[in-house]
Amino acid sequence: MTEITRPTLIIDKEICLQNIERMAKKAEKHKLRLRPHFKTHQAAKVGEWFKQFGISQITVSSVSMAEYFASNGWSDITLAFPLNILEISRINRLADSIKLNVLVENREAAEVLALKASKKIGVFLKIDTGYNRTGIPAGRTGRIDSILDILSKNSKLTFKGFLTHTGHTYTARSTNEIFSSHFDALLKLKQLRNRYQKNYPGMELSMGDTPSASICGNFDGVDELRPGNFVFYDLTQHKLGVCEISDIAVKVVCPVVAKHVSRNEIVIYGGAVHLSKDTLQNTDGKELYGRVIINHDGEKVLLDTKNYLTRLSQEHGIIKVTPANFKLINVGDLVEIIPVHSCLTANILGHMITSEGEFIEMMPKY
Amino acid sequence: MTEITRPTLIIDKEICLQNIERMAKKAEKHKLRLRPHFKTHQAAKVGEWFKQFGISQITVSSVSMAEYFASNGWSDITLAFPLNILEISRINRLADSIKLNVLVENREAAEVLALKASKKIGVFLKIDTGYNRTGIPAGRTGRIDSILDILSKNSKLTFKGFLTHTGHTYTARSTNEIFSSHFDALLKLKQLRNRYQKNYPGMELSMGDTPSASICGNFDGVDELRPGNFVFYDLTQHKLGVCEISDIAVKVVCPVVAKHVSRNEIVIYGGAVHLSKDTLQNTDGKELYGRVIINHDGEKVLLDTKNYLTRLSQEHGIIKVTPANFKLINVGDLVEIIPVHSCLTANILGHMITSEGEFIEMMPKY
Repeated sequence: MTEITRPTLIIDKEICLQNIERMAKKAEKHKLRLRPHFKTHQAAKVGEWFKQFGISQITVSSVSMAEYFASNGWSDITLAFPLNILEISRINRLADSIKLNVLVENREAAEVLALKASKKIGVFLKIDTGYNRTGIPAGRTGRIDSILDILSKNSKLTFKGFLTHTGHTYTARSTNEIFSSHFDALLKLKQLRNRYQKNYPGMELSMGDTPSASICGNFDGVDELRPGNFVFYDLTQHKLGVCEISDIAVKVVCPVVAKHVSRNEIVIYGGAVHLSKDTLQNTDGKELYGRVIINHDGEKVLLDTKNYLTRLSQEHGIIKVTPANFKLINVGDLVEIIPVHSCLTANILGHMITSEGEFIEMMPKY
Repeated sequence: MTEITRPTLIIDKEICLQNIERMAKKAEKHKLRLRPHFKTHQAAKVGEWFKQFGISQITVSSVSMAEYFASNGWSDITLAFPLNILEISRINRLADSIKLNVLVENREAAEVLALKASKKIGVFLKIDTGYNRTGIPAGRTGRIDSILDILSKNSKLTFKGFLTHTGHTYTARSTNEIFSSHFDALLKLKQLRNRYQKNYPGMELSMGDTPSASICGNFDGVDELRPGNFVFYDLTQHKLGVCEISDIAVKVVCPVVAKHVSRNEIVIYGGAVHLSKDTLQNTDGKELYGRVIINHDGEKVLLDTKNYLTRLSQEHGIIKVTPANFKLINVGDLVEIIPVHSCLTANILGHMITSEGEFIEMMPKY
């Protein structure tokens, strides 16, 4: 920490291991396969940490990410993003070397896949259980039937089941809303299972946003969980009530470069290119880009929400503080910022350092 | 373009050259040195394009960026970010091989610099002319005097003058407000010149946000302009009224992966990790993450603001379109997204491809 001179993503390996262990135990208790989403960390070394908890199957969000983790020894990967038919050649190449599942949600993609899949590929149908981002609305069995019909034309393709991302849990205003969105998604998936299991006895149900995976206790009928963010957690998850601040494994350490007493503002070297621009609404109604930990008398102190990262430009961050805290922070100090959205923060920085000082490279950007 | 299969930043070299030429001619007309800010592109190859317009001095926003461009042949660099005293060793090393200017705005940093500068370093004082991000408020001549006093203790340090970034032009609601903020900043800097020029006859005034550099015509008394964004421009600059859509040199090409007719939404492979999360308020009052160009009958068509990128998650982008345009866009098509903030988009993607197909690497993330 004392050797840090510029914005640096610090990852606490011990907290990550605790987070993974907790989720792995929960999955085991509910007889679920944990297939964690690796888009959060995008790092081969962090991926290794999952292995001691029996994880051998993973989720990714792009062909590039699948290639990266395949080249790092992962041989069972679900590409949880609507099939991009322009990448079909790379998908075939991948499927030649690993067990690959893809997602289909429309006839156009199903037809290209049925025509061009030359290797064994598992296919999940992406179901929209209310998030309204993408996927087949759960009630649209006509569309499901016709996609299954198209896929059946190519014997390389195996229908694996239904997959959903209950992403609307991220806009929940209470944990009750998370429970309710999760339960609703569960019911919709189970109706699909009831309808299709007879013809497809091997089919599975796959769910897995971090909020519901963290706090819900009913996974009846579900086979697989795919949360990603839980390995790091962040302020978004904390605000949702699904993790404690002490569960958050990543912080961006930033140098203090200026102070403005008339505005009670601290300027840090740490901006949009280090933290990303995701925000939360702070207790004062304003946009919050991160919370602040300072060193005081040799101890780390998390400041309350009257002190927070309030503005970001490309390389500058502006921290609003109370007059009392203003005096405790000096030019040349290092402060730690807890990020709003750890996935985007890790992605934008492109590398991390463990609290033990180990450098962790992330997947290349191309 | 037809070989693109995943989100790709395309840069139009011809438009960049026009943008550079226009700004270089303007600087020449007003007898200003153009010292462009290279944080926008962060690419050695793009940097080369400036040389044919006589540019040999540049601005950067981090020590890392200064090192990168120094290693690519740039030997006169202003590091336009409040001095980060934790990086003083690297600053000394840089100043050993190139002509380096740094920014100081407080006594703490000045003292460390005066104590530790071991090579010749130019020092600008960073003046806040109303942006309220950072810098010495223009009227605080007491603080200026005491910083100059501290700097004078080390003969390696040369006071170069006053530098400001009139960043509040970015929140202008009309071009008149840009003119007015610029003129106000100009007056404040000239007052400083009047006060300090006698004792520091070599001192200069340096200004340079892209909005005022693009449209203002009064630079009386200014020596140097440091705009950066103008090489690419973007929707933010267009909304401010300082560039035409045809001046925007960068677009992110994204594959279409799904369509949802009930919501008139198109899902693209292209999310926060490809575009960054900067937004503008659209004509309908909603957040806009980008505008959309489609191919129609072999021609590129810019859709109006009823059609726009409305939501982003990590890898997904959601485009809202009119029913008529919904029919024109198909799964497997490539659409072009004009970014809201080109600096952040380029930074997050980490590389670009020219419209002629040349691959352009950007500076490494560490």
